[in-house]
Amino acid sequence: MEGYRLFLALLASALLLGFLSVLFALVWVFHYREGLSWDGAEAEFNWHPVLIITGFVFIQGIAIIVYRLPWTWKCSKLLMKFIHAGLNTIAMILAIVSLVAVFDFHNAKNIPNMYSLHSWIGLTAVILYSLQLVLGFAVFLLPFAPVSLRASLMPIHIYSGLLIFVTVIATAFMGFTEKLLFALKNYKASPPEGIFVNTLGLLILIFGALVLWMATRPQWKRPPEQNSKLQQPNGGTEESAMTDCSKAEKADVEFNSEAAARKRNLKLDEAGQRSTM
Amino acid sequence: MEGYRLFLALLASALLLGFLSVLFALVWVFHYREGLSWDGAEAEFNWHPVLIITGFVFIQGIAIIVYRLPWTWKCSKLLMKFIHAGLNTIAMILAIVSLVAVFDFHNAKNIPNMYSLHSWIGLTAVILYSLQLVLGFAVFLLPFAPVSLRASLMPIHIYSGLLIFVTVIATAFMGFTEKLLFALKNYKASPPEGIFVNTLGLLILIFGALVLWMATRPQWKRPPEQNSKLQQPNGGTEESAMTDCSKAEKADVEFNSEAAARKRNLKLDEAGQRSTM
Repeated sequence: MEGYRLFLALLASALLLGFLSVLFALVWVFHYREGLSWDGAEAEFNWHPVLIITGFVFIQGIAIIVYRLPWTWKCSKLLMKFIHAGLNTIAMILAIVSLVAVFDFHNAKNIPNMYSLHSWIGLTAVILYSLQLVLGFAVFLLPFAPVSLRASLMPIHIYSGLLIFVTVIATAFMGFTEKLLFALKNYKASPPEGIFVNTLGLLILIFGALVLWMATRPQWKRPPEQNSKLQQPNGGTEESAMTDCSKAEKADVEFNSEAAARKRNLKLDEAGQRSTM
Repeated sequence: MEGYRLFLALLASALLLGFLSVLFALVWVFHYREGLSWDGAEAEFNWHPVLIITGFVFIQGIAIIVYRLPWTWKCSKLLMKFIHAGLNTIAMILAIVSLVAVFDFHNAKNIPNMYSLHSWIGLTAVILYSLQLVLGFAVFLLPFAPVSLRASLMPIHIYSGLLIFVTVIATAFMGFTEKLLFALKNYKASPPEGIFVNTLGLLILIFGALVLWMATRPQWKRPPEQNSKLQQPNGGTEESAMTDCSKAEKADVEFNSEAAARKRNLKLDEAGQRSTM
């Protein structure tokens, strides 16, 4: 892999920033706010930033770059698709729970829903994300879609994924702005909580920028299936690496009797994916 | 050009949305707010959204896709670089004037500066944009940078440009959120101004999404210099098209005595540009 050390450094930085963002969200709600609970009060609302940052920012970001981790290139594409879809499903569930928390809180406090730009764009992002998940599952995971459809939808899938990711981050920024203006009467005097949440915003901005960079470098794409087993970017022997993930590949065959036919599709499908971004 | 009609339809939609966004910004400040003036009062602040949306969103968006307009492929790359740099310079000037307006307004009203996430990320975007402009001018317009430097910096230039563009849009969304919360005591009751500015946010979101799609499709890249004159996507004759822009190319030669040497560089440089996104 070209620039392997740089990739590792960027990945480590992204993971650090992602963990720090989740940690900052927890410190925000436990140290500066009312903590977490499910009682219709502020502590229920607080699930909203915590779950959005954990699921919709951090886990979604990792799901976007999971194909690019070079030590996964020896694993089957199907396994990686399950990991990609699984991470996105977890992110989706956390996002939905976080929406329930905020609607529940609003209804308990008689606060209107869906009046702000944050809510308009946020709900649009959640709906588009659900569509992306369902379409991605139907087209790229289930074995029914023809190769030509996969190839033509892959550029749209990648573009939509990145667009939703940046839209979610923009929506989070609006959410921080709203919450600080509602909760801090002295936000303009730069109190510690204001500085702290602004810093959280910067962490998320840099996390997003790193994910976008890693996800769009052509030299860091997962190589086409037939060559992937020959590449050992982490310096391990070819034999041990093959053993590591050949089990996964065997499981794939057992999992789906159409696996052989699909493998041929995957190669063509991958060609479609590699034609964009 | 592959998908020429689709490109035209998307371009027309982007232009329409861009114009509509500027129009909405003007209606916002003239119909719902205090209009425009330069007196330290709210009407001076209003230059901020108007100039940001006009320059930093609309003009920057057009500057990003200007190389992709197929009828410019017969013009010299140097001419297109000047147009790209010129549009970005106009955007930069409007952004700076809009910042002066808001600092001036804050100072006149004794409102603190730089306390909000909007201001932190917005100022970061303006600083990165200035760096991008200066570096872009020094490396890609002036004839001094070696080909290898241009080739290695082009992917970073493209990535930074798109990142700054989406960051600016995210910052605008935070700005809308702040202004509506400060100015509308009944924002939660969805008054007409709230709905109107939320709609402006959606227009900008779709404008940004269209620009990002057009800017990242590999099939819509400007072809390498040596082939560009043979392509006539608009159906015009080769001869008439050559005449149209051969003047521009002649002007380039007169403009810079190093043009011939640079032309060789441009081809290699273009190869660098085409290796990413």
